[in-house]
Amino acid sequence: MASSSVSFIIIIITTVLLPSLSSQLSDLFPSNNPPPFLGKHSHPIKQPNHHQQYHYETRYFSQPLDHFSFLDLPRFRQRYLINTEHWVGPSRSGPIFLYCGNEGDIEWFAVNTGFVWDIAPRFGAMILFPEHRYYGDSMPFGSKEEAYRNATTLSYLTAEQALADFAVLITNLKKNLSAEGCPVVLFGGSYGGMLAAWMRLKYPHIAIGALASSAPILQFEDIVPPETFYNIVSNSFKRESSSCFDTIKNSWNALTSEGQKEDGLKQLSKTFHLCQELTSVQGLSDWLDSAYSYLAMVNYPYPSNFLMPLPGHPIREVCKKIDGSPAGSSILEHIFNGVSVYYNYTGEVDCFQLDDDPHGMDGWNWQACTEMVMPMSSDRNTSMFPAYDWDYSAFREGCQEDFQVTPRPRWITTEFGGHDIEHVLKSFGSNIIFSNGLLDPWSGGSVLKNISETIIALITKEGAHHIDLRASSTEDPDWLVEQRATEIKLIQGWIDNYRKKMKATFEI
Amino acid sequence: MASSSVSFIIIIITTVLLPSLSSQLSDLFPSNNPPPFLGKHSHPIKQPNHHQQYHYETRYFSQPLDHFSFLDLPRFRQRYLINTEHWVGPSRSGPIFLYCGNEGDIEWFAVNTGFVWDIAPRFGAMILFPEHRYYGDSMPFGSKEEAYRNATTLSYLTAEQALADFAVLITNLKKNLSAEGCPVVLFGGSYGGMLAAWMRLKYPHIAIGALASSAPILQFEDIVPPETFYNIVSNSFKRESSSCFDTIKNSWNALTSEGQKEDGLKQLSKTFHLCQELTSVQGLSDWLDSAYSYLAMVNYPYPSNFLMPLPGHPIREVCKKIDGSPAGSSILEHIFNGVSVYYNYTGEVDCFQLDDDPHGMDGWNWQACTEMVMPMSSDRNTSMFPAYDWDYSAFREGCQEDFQVTPRPRWITTEFGGHDIEHVLKSFGSNIIFSNGLLDPWSGGSVLKNISETIIALITKEGAHHIDLRASSTEDPDWLVEQRATEIKLIQGWIDNYRKKMKATFEI
Repeated sequence: MASSSVSFIIIIITTVLLPSLSSQLSDLFPSNNPPPFLGKHSHPIKQPNHHQQYHYETRYFSQPLDHFSFLDLPRFRQRYLINTEHWVGPSRSGPIFLYCGNEGDIEWFAVNTGFVWDIAPRFGAMILFPEHRYYGDSMPFGSKEEAYRNATTLSYLTAEQALADFAVLITNLKKNLSAEGCPVVLFGGSYGGMLAAWMRLKYPHIAIGALASSAPILQFEDIVPPETFYNIVSNSFKRESSSCFDTIKNSWNALTSEGQKEDGLKQLSKTFHLCQELTSVQGLSDWLDSAYSYLAMVNYPYPSNFLMPLPGHPIREVCKKIDGSPAGSSILEHIFNGVSVYYNYTGEVDCFQLDDDPHGMDGWNWQACTEMVMPMSSDRNTSMFPAYDWDYSAFREGCQEDFQVTPRPRWITTEFGGHDIEHVLKSFGSNIIFSNGLLDPWSGGSVLKNISETIIALITKEGAHHIDLRASSTEDPDWLVEQRATEIKLIQGWIDNYRKKMKATFEI
Repeated sequence: MASSSVSFIIIIITTVLLPSLSSQLSDLFPSNNPPPFLGKHSHPIKQPNHHQQYHYETRYFSQPLDHFSFLDLPRFRQRYLINTEHWVGPSRSGPIFLYCGNEGDIEWFAVNTGFVWDIAPRFGAMILFPEHRYYGDSMPFGSKEEAYRNATTLSYLTAEQALADFAVLITNLKKNLSAEGCPVVLFGGSYGGMLAAWMRLKYPHIAIGALASSAPILQFEDIVPPETFYNIVSNSFKRESSSCFDTIKNSWNALTSEGQKEDGLKQLSKTFHLCQELTSVQGLSDWLDSAYSYLAMVNYPYPSNFLMPLPGHPIREVCKKIDGSPAGSSILEHIFNGVSVYYNYTGEVDCFQLDDDPHGMDGWNWQACTEMVMPMSSDRNTSMFPAYDWDYSAFREGCQEDFQVTPRPRWITTEFGGHDIEHVLKSFGSNIIFSNGLLDPWSGGSVLKNISETIIALITKEGAHHIDLRASSTEDPDWLVEQRATEIKLIQGWIDNYRKKMKATFEI
């Protein structure tokens, strides 16, 4: 019998940025507590590769640790996965599909990005999955232990350096293959989608277009209201059942009341079938927060196994359990029955293991404490989570304590923009698809309107977190089939235009 | 009586990148000698400010030393000049004209960029001249001595860091002035023009357009032939007089023959009125090379005092002297009479001081040895300079010796592009003017064709190095008046469009 923690599978950009419930429950916990991150959730634990249909070669490329200074630093080995099986090669300007590796093991992203594998053959495309520095097997200083030793060794873990890695790698690879004339198309989901969009904007000479799926590039500073994320999570529950929403909303007080009782923590541990007894309510509330937020992200219309084995429409199933618990159950028993759908759908878990060290040296936590400062709050009225106001000072102090680093909360918008994005990109840039499912809580921080004829927003009302990047299946609803068809058509258009321009030049 | 060296006034991107004659004269000097740079020429020696019409306030802004890592480094003070006299302010979306400071003292650029001062009033624009890090008064580590101590302290002297400095400064300044809605227009000449173009491409959210004057953004790798620069210099002499061209072309052999004679160096020192006796021919040939190259750059149609006090059409005057030297003069006496127009037009110099230390710790030399690797050669047939093939290995060894740094010759094209620029920018980017005068040897590495409706090449046949950025004067030829009028019209168009888009949004 496995404890639930072994099946914890990462998540992309995830909720690591959400202020923990400890600071949300402000009547019980001081609000100037640094918001802990959901450390281990951003560690992609490698799944056994069930997708043996995806064949690739694993290679390594020597990268400068710092592209933007000339310090004499040790280089590091960047891992990348490559498949040239279907590539039609330089003579036919065979496209190169490059997935922008994000905060995890690249093999995990490769097996979970079936769309790229599905469509490569029809495009005669090479497939490349370069890994993001400081994740998986792409560790500076020779090992994760050394790379994550302290703020100095971690200091080169930034999005700009990762983009430059991609740029240097692809330029070098194309040169070696005499494939300079082959168009590169970028793909990415979540933080990877942000990288894909930014890469198209910053390196138009390197990639002709980008499919940026569920990429919350506007979730910075004051561009979108900080309560956006939690509101969307909450609405995803409310649309299934308003009583379910109410039960969750009311459960936090029940939780804290229970925790304050004598033997309360013991009782809570029992109610929630925890393997170890709680030492505070915080761990439990984080655990619940994660479940709700992840459920909103992976609220797919068919059974899936992205983060956890789950039924189709998992929030519906959770709410069925919460609403349908036996008469006489306590509110916390309702909640437990609900989140068991998330944490124990297969029924194999005997007891649940909470995350004990949310402050660990984790890559995404570092990124969130440096560049990727995404303000989050929870609205008293519209959110089912405890009310919480974004408190940058407390956040900064937490980062100083955890990593001995001070965030630069305005850097991302300075470097990549975001404010007034419609204005800025209306007559600048081209060939970006921002795809979003409105059930996905990250959709609120993404681009949801067409900006120009070639910077397009594709919205699906029933979609969740980068569902379009998943492998096609017979269970795909029509809207998903259509969405992918549109994406394929747009990408084909980019490539056709590119070839036309190339041809026109050769004919001159 | 002043020696000529005191009136040496810098030059922008200048010929510091040209391989010195020492390696060109390959029959006498081993060609694997590291090409020395023209060290002191890239030091802007501050001129007394004769342009008292330009009023500005000098301010300082605290910048991170490294924008792209989170190393705990000391910040530095970036100097900037600001004039708000004519600015109509945020309520009327008053534009901000930002000159991208390049490799020298920003006050020197400010007084030599009259165009910005001339047109600011009619636009109701604020004027900003931020200084480039590691130049002038914007020294990391507190002093030039510390900043230039070694490769480690110099390692943050890069174009990317400088662009990020501009981005952070202007974002901060606009926020403090509640001027977020005010459009920024970029200006720059030479390397500053490259920065302006790159800044528009990389930071479209920060600036709505860029006037990039004489910006050789294609002078990298194999984009343009390496002999381009010297060919243009040579043609600028040939068009005035083919015998002048021939005399110069033949003079190098005369120079080396003379140098090999007993007492030859003594005789050369006398012929060229040098203050100190030569220890090799190299210093003299460098001195001549500089004169010809600078003359081609500042070959303005009216008397000017940009680098040196010079007559209008200075190459014409040089050739008149070379062609018209008294009968019986030696070829080197012809040459001396010619270059005296450059080095001693005012007739005040008694003897000439050569540069003794071309290998000194100079900012632009560092940049040329790291990112700004511009291959240069001199063609046996078409150039009036000694034949020289670009030798990257020798160049790299020179950099390793001088700075203990290894260049990254492909980095600029990876980071900023350049190859196939017409393709890449045809449907990406907008609002850039590449202005060039075809007499300018740097024009060969710039953009000389319109790329799209809004990425425009403005060419003047008779123009030299960023003449359009100079203050208007009654001596301006018609083509220059027209060129500036076109630039003003285009800039006005950018601002009008910006305001229209803003207005449309507010009305929605």
